[in-house]
Amino acid sequence: MALAAALTAAMEPPADNSFDLSEASLRRLHNAKWNQYGPDVLPAFVAEMDFAVAEPIQRAVQSLVERSDYGYPRRDGGKAGLAVAKAFAHRMKDRFDWDVDPALIVPVADLVQGTYAPVLAFTEPGDGIILQVPNYPPFREVIRTTERNLISLPMMDSGSGYLCNTEQIVDQIDGRTRMFVLCNPHNPTGRVFSRNELLDIGRFCIEHELIVLSDEIHSDLVYPGRRHIPFASLSPELAARTVTLNSPTKSFNIPGLRCAVLHFGSPELRERFGKRIPQRLLGDPNAIGVDAAVAAWTESQPWLDAVMGHLTATRDHVLRRIETELPEIQFRVPEGTYLAWLDCSGLMLNTSAFDFFHERARVAFSPGENFEPNCSAFVRFNFATSRVIADEIVDRMVAAVKTLRVC
Amino acid sequence: MALAAALTAAMEPPADNSFDLSEASLRRLHNAKWNQYGPDVLPAFVAEMDFAVAEPIQRAVQSLVERSDYGYPRRDGGKAGLAVAKAFAHRMKDRFDWDVDPALIVPVADLVQGTYAPVLAFTEPGDGIILQVPNYPPFREVIRTTERNLISLPMMDSGSGYLCNTEQIVDQIDGRTRMFVLCNPHNPTGRVFSRNELLDIGRFCIEHELIVLSDEIHSDLVYPGRRHIPFASLSPELAARTVTLNSPTKSFNIPGLRCAVLHFGSPELRERFGKRIPQRLLGDPNAIGVDAAVAAWTESQPWLDAVMGHLTATRDHVLRRIETELPEIQFRVPEGTYLAWLDCSGLMLNTSAFDFFHERARVAFSPGENFEPNCSAFVRFNFATSRVIADEIVDRMVAAVKTLRVC
Repeated sequence: MALAAALTAAMEPPADNSFDLSEASLRRLHNAKWNQYGPDVLPAFVAEMDFAVAEPIQRAVQSLVERSDYGYPRRDGGKAGLAVAKAFAHRMKDRFDWDVDPALIVPVADLVQGTYAPVLAFTEPGDGIILQVPNYPPFREVIRTTERNLISLPMMDSGSGYLCNTEQIVDQIDGRTRMFVLCNPHNPTGRVFSRNELLDIGRFCIEHELIVLSDEIHSDLVYPGRRHIPFASLSPELAARTVTLNSPTKSFNIPGLRCAVLHFGSPELRERFGKRIPQRLLGDPNAIGVDAAVAAWTESQPWLDAVMGHLTATRDHVLRRIETELPEIQFRVPEGTYLAWLDCSGLMLNTSAFDFFHERARVAFSPGENFEPNCSAFVRFNFATSRVIADEIVDRMVAAVKTLRVC
Repeated sequence: MALAAALTAAMEPPADNSFDLSEASLRRLHNAKWNQYGPDVLPAFVAEMDFAVAEPIQRAVQSLVERSDYGYPRRDGGKAGLAVAKAFAHRMKDRFDWDVDPALIVPVADLVQGTYAPVLAFTEPGDGIILQVPNYPPFREVIRTTERNLISLPMMDSGSGYLCNTEQIVDQIDGRTRMFVLCNPHNPTGRVFSRNELLDIGRFCIEHELIVLSDEIHSDLVYPGRRHIPFASLSPELAARTVTLNSPTKSFNIPGLRCAVLHFGSPELRERFGKRIPQRLLGDPNAIGVDAAVAAWTESQPWLDAVMGHLTATRDHVLRRIETELPEIQFRVPEGTYLAWLDCSGLMLNTSAFDFFHERARVAFSPGENFEPNCSAFVRFNFATSRVIADEIVDRMVAAVKTLRVC
């Protein structure tokens, strides 16, 4: 999508951005984002947002803490994990008209655990796993550390956007290829796949009898003009081979509270999983994560709507500045996620783009090479921050690149 | 141990029992203990305490919540799990003079996860696992659901206390016997094993080349006159085959926050484990559980000392009343834990003891048959509650037994 067409009209930040946190208050947090680098570095790496959480979430947590209610949790007359499953099912119906049976959900702590478990359940060492590249680094880590065989499916830049064409890898598929790890909305490129693109992937997976692990953790972070489609909602035939991974921690900004779900598209798939990975091997969910997740999925949409307004405006503002002031940097406008995948090869750097901006701009992006070894000329820019900080990051990038031009 | 000798002088509750919660405030909690049964039932089952948590824990949680600091946690310049490992290592040295290397610790969510993981790592389906019976029900569940072979080691009542004599099972050991699940302090009997008893078990495990999974979650809940000895501290030779399972959630009453540790007694054992069970399959610890665990292990001992004073007095008071007013019920005085294992066979009931007290006394104990199928004449009594509630429970037991005598 060309920039002019993709960017909505330049907007001021919406009136309701009371969730913005100042740099001073962000530096008081005990999170990785604001503590991993020095105090003069602006962090734009790990995918969390510099925003205060939704009031319903904070209220739910505070209510539990005021009672110091830290016993074995019971919710709605059942196990706490079931409350999360029900909230997820309700939300999927409400947002995506997707019918989800809470009995087919296994709660997990986080996305990484939720990736290891299906990989270990449905594949053996030496089996092939297809992965879009570039990709969320732990996906590659899971495949490597469990001694599976990575089959890279490149996200190709068509000139107007990243596409994922399975024909590229047909000759790499054999009888031991078992799984397709789909990331949609895609991290780091920001693509939100269309129904036709997903159906193409679906036909490919049926033809080659692949299990689909569909990471949809960014499904709530989709910009105007695009719509998320849960892969398992495409057809019962596809659902029967699909494990969907989702969590409120990304869109509602509560990753430290650890609450995510694995959804199995059929009872048979759930049962196959359970035979290899007992549910209790994965640990029971913690009470605070459960209450926060339920509050997020059932009561916090107004907050998310306001955040999406802010993110839309920030995306457009930041990318317009980069287009104008840093024309050496190429990008495609993300259709989802708060991540921009910046191709800095036009800067002709003699270090990685990450190192350059870290050293010269005191900005810490995510290094491109973490998402694909050949991508050290790329960085991933997390722009989920205030307009002030986003502008400061771009200012610093511009200043750093200026020193380069002088050299 | 005979009652007269075992019980300390009858005591009033110590002055500092400000952690006692009233029934009214307990019924406002959203936990399993106070919600699983009807509002007219007094719960004395699931092992959590009816006490407010230690102030340092509450302060740590509140501090995080006030900042709404729910991002990916970083603590002391490293991953949050390492902060838990260091706090555990420091505590083990301080309390038990046991040297623990934090690098040999894997954080887990809870005891059940911490049991599944080593069982799956160190044994195969069909392998034999020795388990003391009666036992914590999930141990039996793990062995059954993973299709291992249960070898029962009966805790024999010697007349003065429960003993665990490995000679009873020598003829059941074969080349496929791989693991000894040791629970010390023992749930449900309350035994705290002496050094000599542990060394006997150790010799047995060396002789038969067994991995020891040592559940020491009750290690802080030991009464005057007994001392907990970590199994892995007995010798380097035993450490090298021992996985220790511990958590602050039991003694500091925060099970819903989910934070526990697996300690491997040698780098080789840790490595063997990691080859079968990748650490990230177990999920990263949640930020609140981490901060609560660190506050528990490093700052909350004064609270625990006060709680132990209260529990000692409650144990002695309650058991003296049972001895006097319910002479049909037999028991051994627990040396650790806040659990009493009551043999109600003298009541000659025609239902399970659990059903009798649930129906006639409106008291919910843990059913004995959950700990050992043949033990339906037993109940496990969790007496970690206020003197008022403990007395009401005994009053109701006495009244229910009286109706029996009339019949």
